[in-house]
Amino acid sequence: MAGNSIGKEFTVTTFGESHGKVVGVVVDGCPAGLPLSESDFQEELDRRIPAEPKIVSARIEKDVAKILSGVFNGFTTGAPIALMVENKETDSSDYEAIKDLPRPGHSDYPARVKYGGFNDYRGGGRFSGRVTVALIMAGTIAKKLLSRYDVDVLAYTSAIGQVKTDKKFGAAEIRKNRYAAATRCPDLACAEKMEEAIINARKEGESLGGIIECIALNMPAGIGEPLFDSLDADLAKAVFAVPAVKGVEFGAGFRAAELMGSENNDAFRLEGGKVVTSTDNAGGVLGGLTIGMPIMIRVAVKPTPSIAKEQKTVNLSTMKNAALSVKGRHDPCVVPKAVPAIEAAVAITLADHMIRSGFIPKVLKEH
Amino acid sequence: MAGNSIGKEFTVTTFGESHGKVVGVVVDGCPAGLPLSESDFQEELDRRIPAEPKIVSARIEKDVAKILSGVFNGFTTGAPIALMVENKETDSSDYEAIKDLPRPGHSDYPARVKYGGFNDYRGGGRFSGRVTVALIMAGTIAKKLLSRYDVDVLAYTSAIGQVKTDKKFGAAEIRKNRYAAATRCPDLACAEKMEEAIINARKEGESLGGIIECIALNMPAGIGEPLFDSLDADLAKAVFAVPAVKGVEFGAGFRAAELMGSENNDAFRLEGGKVVTSTDNAGGVLGGLTIGMPIMIRVAVKPTPSIAKEQKTVNLSTMKNAALSVKGRHDPCVVPKAVPAIEAAVAITLADHMIRSGFIPKVLKEH
Amino acid sequence: MAGNSIGKEFTVTTFGESHGKVVGVVVDGCPAGLPLSESDFQEELDRRIPAEPKIVSARIEKDVAKILSGVFNGFTTGAPIALMVENKETDSSDYEAIKDLPRPGHSDYPARVKYGGFNDYRGGGRFSGRVTVALIMAGTIAKKLLSRYDVDVLAYTSAIGQVKTDKKFGAAEIRKNRYAAATRCPDLACAEKMEEAIINARKEGESLGGIIECIALNMPAGIGEPLFDSLDADLAKAVFAVPAVKGVEFGAGFRAAELMGSENNDAFRLEGGKVVTSTDNAGGVLGGLTIGMPIMIRVAVKPTPSIAKEQKTVNLSTMKNAALSVKGRHDPCVVPKAVPAIEAAVAITLADHMIRSGFIPKVLKEH
Amino acid sequence: MAGNSIGKEFTVTTFGESHGKVVGVVVDGCPAGLPLSESDFQEELDRRIPAEPKIVSARIEKDVAKILSGVFNGFTTGAPIALMVENKETDSSDYEAIKDLPRPGHSDYPARVKYGGFNDYRGGGRFSGRVTVALIMAGTIAKKLLSRYDVDVLAYTSAIGQVKTDKKFGAAEIRKNRYAAATRCPDLACAEKMEEAIINARKEGESLGGIIECIALNMPAGIGEPLFDSLDADLAKAVFAVPAVKGVEFGAGFRAAELMGSENNDAFRLEGGKVVTSTDNAGGVLGGLTIGMPIMIRVAVKPTPSIAKEQKTVNLSTMKNAALSVKGRHDPCVVPKAVPAIEAAVAITLADHMIRSGFIPKVLKEH
Repeated sequence: MAGNSIGKEFTVTTFGESHGKVVGVVVDGCPAGLPLSESDFQEELDRRIPAEPKIVSARIEKDVAKILSGVFNGFTTGAPIALMVENKETDSSDYEAIKDLPRPGHSDYPARVKYGGFNDYRGGGRFSGRVTVALIMAGTIAKKLLSRYDVDVLAYTSAIGQVKTDKKFGAAEIRKNRYAAATRCPDLACAEKMEEAIINARKEGESLGGIIECIALNMPAGIGEPLFDSLDADLAKAVFAVPAVKGVEFGAGFRAAELMGSENNDAFRLEGGKVVTSTDNAGGVLGGLTIGMPIMIRVAVKPTPSIAKEQKTVNLSTMKNAALSVKGRHDPCVVPKAVPAIEAAVAITLADHMIRSGFIPKVLKEH
Repeated sequence: MAGNSIGKEFTVTTFGESHGKVVGVVVDGCPAGLPLSESDFQEELDRRIPAEPKIVSARIEKDVAKILSGVFNGFTTGAPIALMVENKETDSSDYEAIKDLPRPGHSDYPARVKYGGFNDYRGGGRFSGRVTVALIMAGTIAKKLLSRYDVDVLAYTSAIGQVKTDKKFGAAEIRKNRYAAATRCPDLACAEKMEEAIINARKEGESLGGIIECIALNMPAGIGEPLFDSLDADLAKAVFAVPAVKGVEFGAGFRAAELMGSENNDAFRLEGGKVVTSTDNAGGVLGGLTIGMPIMIRVAVKPTPSIAKEQKTVNLSTMKNAALSVKGRHDPCVVPKAVPAIEAAVAITLADHMIRSGFIPKVLKEH
Repeated sequence: MAGNSIGKEFTVTTFGESHGKVVGVVVDGCPAGLPLSESDFQEELDRRIPAEPKIVSARIEKDVAKILSGVFNGFTTGAPIALMVENKETDSSDYEAIKDLPRPGHSDYPARVKYGGFNDYRGGGRFSGRVTVALIMAGTIAKKLLSRYDVDVLAYTSAIGQVKTDKKFGAAEIRKNRYAAATRCPDLACAEKMEEAIINARKEGESLGGIIECIALNMPAGIGEPLFDSLDADLAKAVFAVPAVKGVEFGAGFRAAELMGSENNDAFRLEGGKVVTSTDNAGGVLGGLTIGMPIMIRVAVKPTPSIAKEQKTVNLSTMKNAALSVKGRHDPCVVPKAVPAIEAAVAITLADHMIRSGFIPKVLKEH
Repeated sequence: MAGNSIGKEFTVTTFGESHGKVVGVVVDGCPAGLPLSESDFQEELDRRIPAEPKIVSARIEKDVAKILSGVFNGFTTGAPIALMVENKETDSSDYEAIKDLPRPGHSDYPARVKYGGFNDYRGGGRFSGRVTVALIMAGTIAKKLLSRYDVDVLAYTSAIGQVKTDKKFGAAEIRKNRYAAATRCPDLACAEKMEEAIINARKEGESLGGIIECIALNMPAGIGEPLFDSLDADLAKAVFAVPAVKGVEFGAGFRAAELMGSENNDAFRLEGGKVVTSTDNAGGVLGGLTIGMPIMIRVAVKPTPSIAKEQKTVNLSTMKNAALSVKGRHDPCVVPKAVPAIEAAVAITLADHMIRSGFIPKVLKEH
């Protein structure tokens, strides 16, 4: 079974390759009655490309979403919503040269094995970060849907390489600052240091990774479908759709493994008649179900595998050891571009589970 | 859609509760022709219960698997394989007392919200670690199937609380030592310190978490179904079926976020005519596909939420703040019991993907 | 992907073989809060076996359902409900003799090809009508669930071989009479002729098929999930799970193909403020959606393939032409036993779609 | 869960509405290495529109398929294949007038209930026969894939209203003649009478239905996934995706219900070392599995609901009884257009099951 769909109620199917005609997505299961227009997608698509040219690849990917189906008179109809963005300025010349030289850390080698050499390798093809454009379009719909129920999903950068912020951010601060900085870190002083680190890495023909944090506010309690489709399980799965993700944790995460039970357990108490917890080590999820507290997910992003520095590889045509220096347009750090993609992956999963639980109905209101 | 099934070719559906009649599982999609008998399950089920009574709950859960269907003349038939283990010695008296007092860190509260109070709360019901018995039975079949293709899945403990081993283990060492120690750590000196830490935690009415590592050897390259059903995505999802998991990472994982590209990329080279990597930061997965190198997954397990120490909670019946000291049989650390469960979750996912890719056929050999 | 599950919200997974230990089923996705006990299943299971021994096989299959999970304090919990019935009095001696001689009209030959000879061929194994016991258990839950919303599903026999009733039955008449006759035909005069026809067929070493009709009352309008998961599409699929089904039609069905548009279209009109149709050629479904009128489905059942009369076949061991006379206990007509199975298949599908549409919630009422 | 996808290995997701921008489809799971270009789709799309203008609606729907993704260097890549056809000459003026007047026999009424009035009702929207364009595009790929394994799928008309052919057609005759006649009946003398019947029906403001037969040649034995995903079950489900289908049967179908067992059973015999049957009452499927003989499926298509003759309906805005005469472009008989759609639905299902069984691999040949 092919694996290009995710979600059981809000089902997202992506298509398209980095250097193909389009990148697109079909969202099946979006409730009828959600106002939606092409302009809704622009802000999210723009957020993928930081304004600061020194930290991203030179490609000017001004992406414009086209709605192909599923919207009528300004509202979703309950039919599948198909969306696409055209690929422009694709220059595939650099890729021909390295067709037989798999880039270390990249999918080139296993993709060639899996697809028997038929895969579109240009620009990484189906494995390119560009494919997150589809995720972001679906995520835009998910976020619009969630916002009707006051659920807000906010991702931001908390580390680039070894530059980290230890600040705890309030939601207002995140909303205000994260897209102010090219590195998408709401701690603006730290954001500047992150930018420097990226610029330095590029100069050295190097690349950097980082950490993205994502919170979701106002999710009701009891959402998730254990045993296997637990909310944390499905969130973990979804974020791996963003290229370069190597780890995920909730709340205290790996740090929880070092704590005593009494330290890690979040005590319950009443606040305004509502059950809340005094601490947030659980990251908003217990037993695979939301507890009505903010969800907190942390995602590890590895450094971009495509670097100018010479690396060792194998020539798959001659089957001899070889060396490789990756040319062409490559981001020295994909973390800033991955921020809206992580947000989208989380939003899609939350929307899916809110519908699965019956919290969001199939028709939003009578016309 | 309910969420008690996982896998698209090797499909595992679990049922049963901690204090109900049975814990069981149906495996649909196991190829025909695999030799299988009830005794195959005993070793794996026994591994769930460390022999050392000081570090586990007093319950003597000698579990015996019964095959209900899908096996004929000693071989799997291609029909669904149903398995169950009876629950014995269930004492639910302790749970009645705390029915309205949700344990901090446990699923009690969100489960009550989700299921409107109808859920079987005795012993944690469906959210109990006991349900991993079903996972382990399915995993036993998966491991037998994988072993025909020389794939070996090995989980072990690498940290309990703050006691950690930094040793790099060879496969032979893991196989030999991990079940020698009650804490399932193949570094036997470290294993002893872990045991002490658990005994001390219990004395103080406390609990501990830890880290489980799992490697999979001899997986062929090119296995996984990107974009969404990437191998790492599906592995990440599967391990969250084991209660208390709060994080997962592959290879260098979160540490990769701090490395430079040239440090993190695993260079390719030829070895005996085969493409291999010189380092293993990727954890055996690139672009969601296996690369033919060992898979390495690390899982964070939180400390057991049920502790004797008094904790703050809310009485959901009176809706007043309350205090709670959890009585009854509880493991001061679930990590040892979780080791075979993580191994099962990984094996199930690998078997599923080996069939999905066509590597494992639907009939193993002509009768 | 194995195919032993059906339904996307009310998901039914069956297991077990005719001569194995048990026949069982797991229902995942039944809402929490439905009263359920083992006695609920007895009436439905008893309905499978007509009291008249002359028209059924000699096997005394008094089946008793055992609830293994998913029910607590007399209510469903929202967890998977596992059920099983033990197989008794299985005598497999007759089957050894014909192991290599596939019965014409039966699954013996293609099953042997598909499963490489590993399938449990005893009594037809997984392909036996006995497996409908699992369907009937799941259907019992579906019917109980639907009855809370006044939806009633009623199947009955309308033809056995060439003996047909042309009566149009009212719901009350169907309820009263269908299980009064061993042949399950509510036209009791016709039912008697059907019984004679079956007895005669048996005497001649022959068998008969027939037609089963099934109506569903009080389904609300707008249920179904086009384009592919239309209600009629999913109903059609479900009834093919009952062995020996060879055709299915809705309302006027194949007869509609001969009508003019103005004859076949069911005119709309108001009745008590509700939109109704004056005729029922659509069988209650338009565009794959219910229209609020009774659903009417007709199912063709072929004559039992196992007959005493000598037939031509091939010996698959020697690969020579051969002759075969089927010995052992075989029903001369499976239609009466198939009636509750068709009812179950329809009820399961309706319950699934009522939950999918959001009409039935995930928790039936607050505890 | 929304229902716009079908198939578990060869997964087809459709999108688009009759009067929207496009009709499109995503095929996920097509093996890599299949030669494919846009011109492959033209012949199939052209077949949907009979050349004879007297028997079809006036709309000139010259449809041209555009490949958006999944094809590289002339071969499928293993990535999702997205295809679309633009909608031209859509005139929605006629529909505004009847927005509140549901057409008898059409989905207007239940669609309005289901989607709360948000559905795109223009031209029937998502329920229009136009949506079969998506099915036909996916079917074109399925047929190309099947043809590599010599599997041929051939649909044709066998009845229009009361005009029927009783001829048994050979495969060569079907291939040669079916698209020679506007009514798609390979019995050319009968085809002419069918055409007259349609022309007469149109003159009277009436419409006609009919029967479509579809055979599939050279399917290997043992394909299908019982218990629920039997081949006949999945074929039955798939054909209901074609609007106006009201019934489906295999082989002798409903007629089998009247036969004795010895008449209906197809005796096995050897022919050239291969197991074959002497008759074909089973329609090529036993126990939900192919038997290596031709598959034969018959589908009942109702008369087009949109007719010029005045009909009774209800005004859903005023909730009063009303009358309606449908204006605009409507086919007096959809059977000819449905022939390639049924062929596509069957081919998609066969391709899906050939991959599911492992008969068709995931990569067609090494590049």
